Amino acid sequence: MSGNKEQKLILGVDIGGTKIATALATACGEIVAPGRNPTHAQAGPDAVINSVLSTIEETMASGKVDSSQLLGIGIAVAGIIDSDNGEVISSPNLPGWHEVPLGSIVQQRFGIPVYLGNDATLAALGEWHFGLERKVANLVYITVSTGIGGGIIASGKLYTGACGAAGEIGHMIIDVNGPPCNCGSVGCWETLASGTALAREAAKQIAEGANTSIAELAGGDMSKIDAKIVFLAAKQGDELAKELISRLGYYFGVGLVNLVNIFNPEIILVGGGVAKIGDLFLRPAIKVVEERAFGTLVDVVHIKPALLGDDSGVLGAVAFVLERSGAPRLNHSER
Amino acid sequence: MSGNKEQKLILGVDIGGTKIATALATACGEIVAPGRNPTHAQAGPDAVINSVLSTIEETMASGKVDSSQLLGIGIAVAGIIDSDNGEVISSPNLPGWHEVPLGSIVQQRFGIPVYLGNDATLAALGEWHFGLERKVANLVYITVSTGIGGGIIASGKLYTGACGAAGEIGHMIIDVNGPPCNCGSVGCWETLASGTALAREAAKQIAEGANTSIAELAGGDMSKIDAKIVFLAAKQGDELAKELISRLGYYFGVGLVNLVNIFNPEIILVGGGVAKIGDLFLRPAIKVVEERAFGTLVDVVHIKPALLGDDSGVLGAVAFVLERSGAPRLNHSER
Repeated sequence: MSGNKEQKLILGVDIGGTKIATALATACGEIVAPGRNPTHAQAGPDAVINSVLSTIEETMASGKVDSSQLLGIGIAVAGIIDSDNGEVISSPNLPGWHEVPLGSIVQQRFGIPVYLGNDATLAALGEWHFGLERKVANLVYITVSTGIGGGIIASGKLYTGACGAAGEIGHMIIDVNGPPCNCGSVGCWETLASGTALAREAAKQIAEGANTSIAELAGGDMSKIDAKIVFLAAKQGDELAKELISRLGYYFGVGLVNLVNIFNPEIILVGGGVAKIGDLFLRPAIKVVEERAFGTLVDVVHIKPALLGDDSGVLGAVAFVLERSGAPRLNHSER
Repeated sequence: MSGNKEQKLILGVDIGGTKIATALATACGEIVAPGRNPTHAQAGPDAVINSVLSTIEETMASGKVDSSQLLGIGIAVAGIIDSDNGEVISSPNLPGWHEVPLGSIVQQRFGIPVYLGNDATLAALGEWHFGLERKVANLVYITVSTGIGGGIIASGKLYTGACGAAGEIGHMIIDVNGPPCNCGSVGCWETLASGTALAREAAKQIAEGANTSIAELAGGDMSKIDAKIVFLAAKQGDELAKELISRLGYYFGVGLVNLVNIFNPEIILVGGGVAKIGDLFLRPAIKVVEERAFGTLVDVVHIKPALLGDDSGVLGAVAFVLERSGAPRLNHSER
């Protein structure tokens, strides 16, 4: 390795609904010092921003660096992000945030370049940059948790669209007559294939008198049912839980068919909490792709679990700094 | 203008199900000599290839050029096309075509570079290259006729995917419980929003005893009903025809919502026979986008009729030669 930029470290931040995660990392994606604090999103923008600033400071202190040793700070946030102006336009995870100039606030505090982007978009970049063993030109990254988000690498480049908001794949309509979505539309992919959809279906079946251990595992509190509990029940052999996950995988597969037919990608990576269910969820999804997408496209696509786990967001933010600051990209062979 | 490449002419070919269209054109997209012959697709690959070769020869003769004066030949074909190897893998318009090395056949005959691509993909490039007054980075082109096809310009570049087959947007599933599609899937966009869907719905309503002039306009022959006839009936004030077109527009809009949310493009251009219906079709579609897509994304997208009309295919093939041969791209200001 040569050049100053590569020797400098990068600080990645991932602001989630419940936690702020940070990583001080090398240009090769090695995490030197991680950081973590609760978001306290309900306390509003000022409190969250202060928490972001102090988490960054703590991480620098723990890594024994000051900002002059950093190439820049990358920040991943869910929602509609204006990367060019470093603004959070709106975020489903952060109530009260409306056109918040988070980029310039952080930049003013630390005096180094700050790059802000959508979390799933940056995660795609992180997976592509640091996760893959062999680079491909076209990749779709999907995160499935309470919602569905995504990021796209097109022709060897992060695809962000006209205003940096591309990749809202969770709001693809796959059932024109489907259930209403939080976004105001109906039948969006995430209303049928997310963790929220799984929990809703489980609660519905229980209300209709289904024989299942899910209610028991939730301590009898229907509002406590989530994807994790349904997965736990499935692992213990609960038939309804297995059936619900398989059905979720089916709907997930329908969205995958669309992405395969639209993007003809080499790789689709599936991350997020629901993806942790593994084969029970992913196998029926891939089956739908094999049955319904164009054969030539199915032959070239690899659909598999994401590679960076919970670090995809922070490492995506790190990769975004490398990309935006024009630092040379390292191939894995150079690592 | 300077340089030899720009002074040379380009020959574009668009092989459709019924006709082979050609255009001898300048690097600015001015058509010097057009050509046209029937495809006779049913006669099989050899006959069609001979017809392609003779149409190219006729066009060169009519333009008074020989192949040494051409930069190259671009060919647009519907279906799955392997552009890297110049092969037609399969084509819905061309029965019996399976991995036909059309590119090398034409190249051998004329001794100049030949570039082969999917017709809708190349049409997107043609619209972007020659149609737009002002370049944008992200564009989706959609052709709606008996089916729905599409092409994508992403980050200022033609997007072709892993094996050149990206843009099969007509086979986005928008109704997971919808009608079967020719492709083997169900509820694809083109089963609900194409000219074929319009004709099918009209025939169905007539069979159920609807009061409409459509049957009469089709001479009482239900198999003759197509999008043109329904449009004609609508223009004459037929209420059912107007309703069917509005419904078609609604379904078309659902697919547009998906494309807006996924691509966040500056422009979506709608071409093909059904698009000629105009506002009666496009207005309800845009209404769905305004109601259901993300507001920030709706604000930046312009959805409008395609700009090159029936020449989008041949001019797309011309643009593909410019792109692939590395000829410098001309801005409109330079034209």
